[in-house]
Amino acid sequence: MAEEATPRLDIAELIRRHPAEIAEILAALNEDEAVELLRRLYLRRAAAEPLGEMEPDEAARLLAELNREDAAHILSHMEPDDAVDLLAELPPETVADILSRLEVREAKQLGELLAYPPDSAGGLMSTEVVALSADMTAERAIEELRAVAEDAETVYYAYVVDERGTLLGVLSLRDLVLARPDTPLRAIMRSDAVVLPVTMDKEEVARTFDKYNFLALPVVDEDHRLLGIVTIDDVIDVIREEATEDALKLGGIPAGEDHPLDPPQVSVRKRLPWLMGLVLLNLTVAGVISRFEATIAEIAFVASLMPLIADMSGNAAAQALAVAIRGIAVGAVHWSNLPWIMWKELRVGLFAGLVLGVQIGLIATLLWRKPLFGLVAGIALAGTTVGACLTGGMLPFMFRRLGLDPAMMSGPVATTIGDLIGIGLFLGLATAFLPYMA
Amino acid sequence: MAEEATPRLDIAELIRRHPAEIAEILAALNEDEAVELLRRLYLRRAAAEPLGEMEPDEAARLLAELNREDAAHILSHMEPDDAVDLLAELPPETVADILSRLEVREAKQLGELLAYPPDSAGGLMSTEVVALSADMTAERAIEELRAVAEDAETVYYAYVVDERGTLLGVLSLRDLVLARPDTPLRAIMRSDAVVLPVTMDKEEVARTFDKYNFLALPVVDEDHRLLGIVTIDDVIDVIREEATEDALKLGGIPAGEDHPLDPPQVSVRKRLPWLMGLVLLNLTVAGVISRFEATIAEIAFVASLMPLIADMSGNAAAQALAVAIRGIAVGAVHWSNLPWIMWKELRVGLFAGLVLGVQIGLIATLLWRKPLFGLVAGIALAGTTVGACLTGGMLPFMFRRLGLDPAMMSGPVATTIGDLIGIGLFLGLATAFLPYMA
Repeated sequence: MAEEATPRLDIAELIRRHPAEIAEILAALNEDEAVELLRRLYLRRAAAEPLGEMEPDEAARLLAELNREDAAHILSHMEPDDAVDLLAELPPETVADILSRLEVREAKQLGELLAYPPDSAGGLMSTEVVALSADMTAERAIEELRAVAEDAETVYYAYVVDERGTLLGVLSLRDLVLARPDTPLRAIMRSDAVVLPVTMDKEEVARTFDKYNFLALPVVDEDHRLLGIVTIDDVIDVIREEATEDALKLGGIPAGEDHPLDPPQVSVRKRLPWLMGLVLLNLTVAGVISRFEATIAEIAFVASLMPLIADMSGNAAAQALAVAIRGIAVGAVHWSNLPWIMWKELRVGLFAGLVLGVQIGLIATLLWRKPLFGLVAGIALAGTTVGACLTGGMLPFMFRRLGLDPAMMSGPVATTIGDLIGIGLFLGLATAFLPYMA
Repeated sequence: MAEEATPRLDIAELIRRHPAEIAEILAALNEDEAVELLRRLYLRRAAAEPLGEMEPDEAARLLAELNREDAAHILSHMEPDDAVDLLAELPPETVADILSRLEVREAKQLGELLAYPPDSAGGLMSTEVVALSADMTAERAIEELRAVAEDAETVYYAYVVDERGTLLGVLSLRDLVLARPDTPLRAIMRSDAVVLPVTMDKEEVARTFDKYNFLALPVVDEDHRLLGIVTIDDVIDVIREEATEDALKLGGIPAGEDHPLDPPQVSVRKRLPWLMGLVLLNLTVAGVISRFEATIAEIAFVASLMPLIADMSGNAAAQALAVAIRGIAVGAVHWSNLPWIMWKELRVGLFAGLVLGVQIGLIATLLWRKPLFGLVAGIALAGTTVGACLTGGMLPFMFRRLGLDPAMMSGPVATTIGDLIGIGLFLGLATAFLPYMA
């Protein structure tokens, strides 16, 4: 795709494509080519939409290469919510310079949107919303929509407000089209509309959309005044980002951002500090083992199964964790479920530990021809499994309660606790039975 | 919520609530209460929508408790795509019995939908779609929409077809409302519409929605005939399910389904077989260690760091894996990127391994006062890191290419390869330097 899309491509053909496809081409080009293409798109007044479809950080990088006047012009033609996402990636001086070149009304609007935290309903919303009076007729309302259609983010819903801007009700374009032309909006609007408080967290926003299946929802302040709308396409982005962030954190990548095509130095910067911390955490296990050096020197074969116990602790913890963390993420479980979950994971750990213990016990007995070693290994693996399940299922709730990130912290801590229990039991029992095992 | 929602609740008040809220209440009640409430909702003709909002398996469980005649009646009032999701959870005899009680047209429609694989565009689509002729005027089209508004899944888009049902173009309700009333649809329809082939995988469907930000997309067969539409609310469910499935698989839970509130026996059944398989995989590492028993007997302190090396192999592999698997899931990387990713992960592994090796080398030297032991541990940890990064980044692509599940298989295999390299290097070098280390 990159090849057919070099700036030598027929620009007239290109701008007839869907903006999402032009955005993909821009993203696939190298920076110089992309900036050149963006300039040519700008001359054809076709730069705003593709930029809005790109990842905000990539779009910001390209926009920063244009002169400020052109950049301001492009921004003024973007959806305000996309424009704000892009501005949020630029340095404050650049933002101030660009805003100063916009019309006062536009600069004020973007400035207000920029003030909302990016992970709140306010940060997701667009302010280009159709607000109508309750006395207007359905016919007039459709005309009004027709007039603003170019500007408004979505005309699939219209909002009825009083003179102070308080939200009175919601109408879908469908309601309007299907109503008799002379009906006043008051008679067809739904007054029990679901609303998003401007401070609502974006993950909560996503859950609200998920629950009610709306295409757009109004955002209100604490006095129930209409501030803007959030549309479902922005919510899909939130859900995807959230899922990626969770998966990366479960994998041990903080800040939840690592693109597979990032250069190695970027990946190292994101991954290495975490790995270095884990080495330190793991030294606690090494500390326990050191206390049993005499036993190991005497019956060196016990060492064979130590990495197995350590790995299985991680495996059992990962399962319990994944269930708990996704459950918390999709809102299926809450803090109040913790006692039940602990009781459940205890039983899962005991049963799975029993079976795994018998499995490794039999295998160890067969391989080393020492039934007592098999018994010790079995008890240790069972202990590891119980510890890892219990802590794996419990820690995500606890860390979340403490305001720490459950997806990041739970895995290594649960694994280490499982390790300590398993390796401690293993070497402790081996030492106790030493006279009979050597 | 469960308490206020017992069947003694005022049913008249209840049915005024949003179906999604009634669905939540049904899900929170115990089975007997939920069936009782469903019967009462059914008597008020308010059962279909809440059932459509529930998880299909839960809705099916409730519906199966009603007599077949009532169940058929409720199904006939649900959106066809929701009804099919629910039917797919019931035993074939029950499905056949229920379909036999529906009108012929409805039974035929649901039967056809059931024939599409649930994870294809055909399995997601609804067949209640507005198909219009190209010669119709905008005004007539709006009247047509008004007439079918009750039945059609969404009237935000209308589709223009020829007499054989071939899709000619797409119109949004917005286009219709904004057009002059006497314009023929031919003149305002978009003929380069994005379409979903009926066999397209649902994850690909989700990516198409994500890219183009449409509210609904038409589904066509190989002759470009219009079969139905997929709407964005179904896609949100797909994205969430997919993310949960990926996270659970990364955690080592096959089949991608384990609700945190499942009873322990269900969780054990889903988790234990995988753990038992991992024990066997890990025995390869135990086998390597056994070959070095003589070394361990002589310098038992080497055993202290073996679990650390094993755990760090899992940690480094998990990072590389998480990046690759999410990258594949969101379509950011493909098979053609594999050589670049291997070259990248090799460099990440070498650099991170170098730093981690120096870290553990210094710590081991300090703790055991044996610089040579520090050197050996450092080289081993570096080797583990390189092996785990490289295989962790590479295996998801390979397993996918082989038609195996990348999220399930890659983690343990990458961890074990990292273990074998690390533990092999560690004990091999320790043996080589034995005379100088004891």
